[in-house]
Amino acid sequence: MNSFKFQNPTKLLFGKGQLNTLPKEVARYGNRILLVYGSESILRNGIYDNVTSILNKIGAEVHELPGVKGNPRVTTVQEGIDICKEENIEFILAIGGGSVIDCSKAIAVGAKSDSNIWDIITKKAKLEGALPLGTILTMAATGSEMNKASVITNWDLNEKITWGSSIVYPKFSILDPEHTYSVPQKQTVYGLVDIMAHVMEQYFHNTTNTPVQDSICESLLKIVIETAPKVLEDPENYEFRETIMLCGTMAMNDMISMGTRSDWALHHIEHAVSAVHDIPHAAGIAILFPHWMQYVVEKDIPRFRQFAVNVFNAEGSGKSDLLIALEGIERLQYLWKSIGAPSTLKEFNINEDKFDIIADKAVSMFPVNSNFVKLDKEDVLNILHMSL
Amino acid sequence: MNSFKFQNPTKLLFGKGQLNTLPKEVARYGNRILLVYGSESILRNGIYDNVTSILNKIGAEVHELPGVKGNPRVTTVQEGIDICKEENIEFILAIGGGSVIDCSKAIAVGAKSDSNIWDIITKKAKLEGALPLGTILTMAATGSEMNKASVITNWDLNEKITWGSSIVYPKFSILDPEHTYSVPQKQTVYGLVDIMAHVMEQYFHNTTNTPVQDSICESLLKIVIETAPKVLEDPENYEFRETIMLCGTMAMNDMISMGTRSDWALHHIEHAVSAVHDIPHAAGIAILFPHWMQYVVEKDIPRFRQFAVNVFNAEGSGKSDLLIALEGIERLQYLWKSIGAPSTLKEFNINEDKFDIIADKAVSMFPVNSNFVKLDKEDVLNILHMSL
Repeated sequence: MNSFKFQNPTKLLFGKGQLNTLPKEVARYGNRILLVYGSESILRNGIYDNVTSILNKIGAEVHELPGVKGNPRVTTVQEGIDICKEENIEFILAIGGGSVIDCSKAIAVGAKSDSNIWDIITKKAKLEGALPLGTILTMAATGSEMNKASVITNWDLNEKITWGSSIVYPKFSILDPEHTYSVPQKQTVYGLVDIMAHVMEQYFHNTTNTPVQDSICESLLKIVIETAPKVLEDPENYEFRETIMLCGTMAMNDMISMGTRSDWALHHIEHAVSAVHDIPHAAGIAILFPHWMQYVVEKDIPRFRQFAVNVFNAEGSGKSDLLIALEGIERLQYLWKSIGAPSTLKEFNINEDKFDIIADKAVSMFPVNSNFVKLDKEDVLNILHMSL
Repeated sequence: MNSFKFQNPTKLLFGKGQLNTLPKEVARYGNRILLVYGSESILRNGIYDNVTSILNKIGAEVHELPGVKGNPRVTTVQEGIDICKEENIEFILAIGGGSVIDCSKAIAVGAKSDSNIWDIITKKAKLEGALPLGTILTMAATGSEMNKASVITNWDLNEKITWGSSIVYPKFSILDPEHTYSVPQKQTVYGLVDIMAHVMEQYFHNTTNTPVQDSICESLLKIVIETAPKVLEDPENYEFRETIMLCGTMAMNDMISMGTRSDWALHHIEHAVSAVHDIPHAAGIAILFPHWMQYVVEKDIPRFRQFAVNVFNAEGSGKSDLLIALEGIERLQYLWKSIGAPSTLKEFNINEDKFDIIADKAVSMFPVNSNFVKLDKEDVLNILHMSL
């Protein structure tokens, strides 16, 4: 284990009806609220009405930033910052999944600074503070509801940047599994892939003596694998949605990477892909991750063997460790295909035309990542070609 | 899963040499410091010298409360409160294990109130605030370094009370596994038993759909079981001490009981025993826990069967579920005996003379506990007799 610092101050409010806690939680932070949300689904499924009714009852002055998209844009962030400054917003309430929450984190810091928000995100300008932020999660996937990270895309520059700060941990996050009942099938699949990928990025590390972290990773993966077909078959089953929601949060609240150095290379390759071709993040992950695994498996066969045996119950004897390791990767591919995730870039009409640009972008992000197996541009190109 | 609130703000600073972070952490809270510690071991092993040298270098004004004992007394707490008030203490630094930290939590709230501290602990008087508290952990056991709980004994009344408040979460806790190298063999054994017992109190619940919580509990138990003989054989092995230290914290930071209702009946029976006979808490736990398990096993055979199979690798076929369940309990008893934990009350010269008083005390604590299997006074007496 490496030495580590761990502190996660977010208050989770988990379970049916937890929206009831909203008045008390909001009251701690102020009356002038910016509501940030994405698609129209929260209008259709009643969450919007419930939340605004609660906020009206407590006499809050509510401003809105609707229309936040997947791969949230810095231009949307700027709109939110402008509202915060014009309306003296005291508190940001994000209703949605990872994109809405990530966007809200960027608005929170932008509202407290006179610097250009893209300069803050790219660390050219300093953080000067953040508005307090609360979240109402409507999709289990990114874990942004209990962490300090955010991913923002700049389409003028075709850049997709992960940034973070301890000042943007949500003050509270309301996680009611019923709020995820109406997530469309495809988005649920993407959420499942995203959760598994987060755990795997942290599981593939080179740190020694990490039995606690490893076994929690393996448990989370096994539980998602077991629950995935069930929740897709029966999307309004409370227990399945509850299990996945908790797994999503636990996968990305930094607890499973205490004392280890996560890899994240594949996430950065995917960010480079979706910064050039606007595909859903988890679709890119589902396509690329198994090929990254095949590409690097021989660098640490025991680790991939452990993954195959402990996560996918592969038989641990009767063939070579490499073959056992490869079986784990195959079973992952099979699982993701079976639940309807994409497996080739072609499915999104992506060919090799822009691979060079993508590989350059990915490699430019590697200085702080690519920890498990160091990758260079040629490696990235090889993985992209394998994923066609 | 039940609905739940989870928030744990303690900052963990884990690993070799983390004492280096002390100046920066202390500087956030003030210059007038009360150092709380227990036995002379921290004088012998150099931790005291290291800490006071760091505090002197930053110009802190240090006052001391040494001599905190196991089962910490309300009289010691009062001494600490008096020092805080007389010396205008701004920050409490606890160096030790659970007893020292629990004592410091009570001092922290007593220092901010004019009420009698026992009235605060027994909820007859209100909490009015708490001095900030940091800890330097020197024994892996209670998890008090990352939770809001504290256990204080009043010898005038023969009462041992568990209390807690979110205002006493340590602001930071420094966990350097090397600080536990010199823990005596017997204390290490008690720590191992305590950690396992904490997980088990949370594992035995009646809540449905808890795969995440259950599998983390099972993982922590398996890791402690595997590491216990190794750390006792080689007490200055960094990795073994590191593993146990992390397990101790994870066992009691409320994460494994998210959304479940833990039992804690056995802890309250033990608290009643050690409030009457001043035996080490974990010794009482080691004696009583297997007998509680035998006494209640038939109330939930599937749960105890799962414990036997998933934690102790008992063969899951070939005999009845009850026999498999009992095998888990036997293996636990065997393990604890094999590492040198006591297994009968007689070993502490305790006979049945005061069982009636003990049972009354235990039952008086049950209104908020005894969740997995409801126990009454007769049940407690039966368990005590089984433990003779």
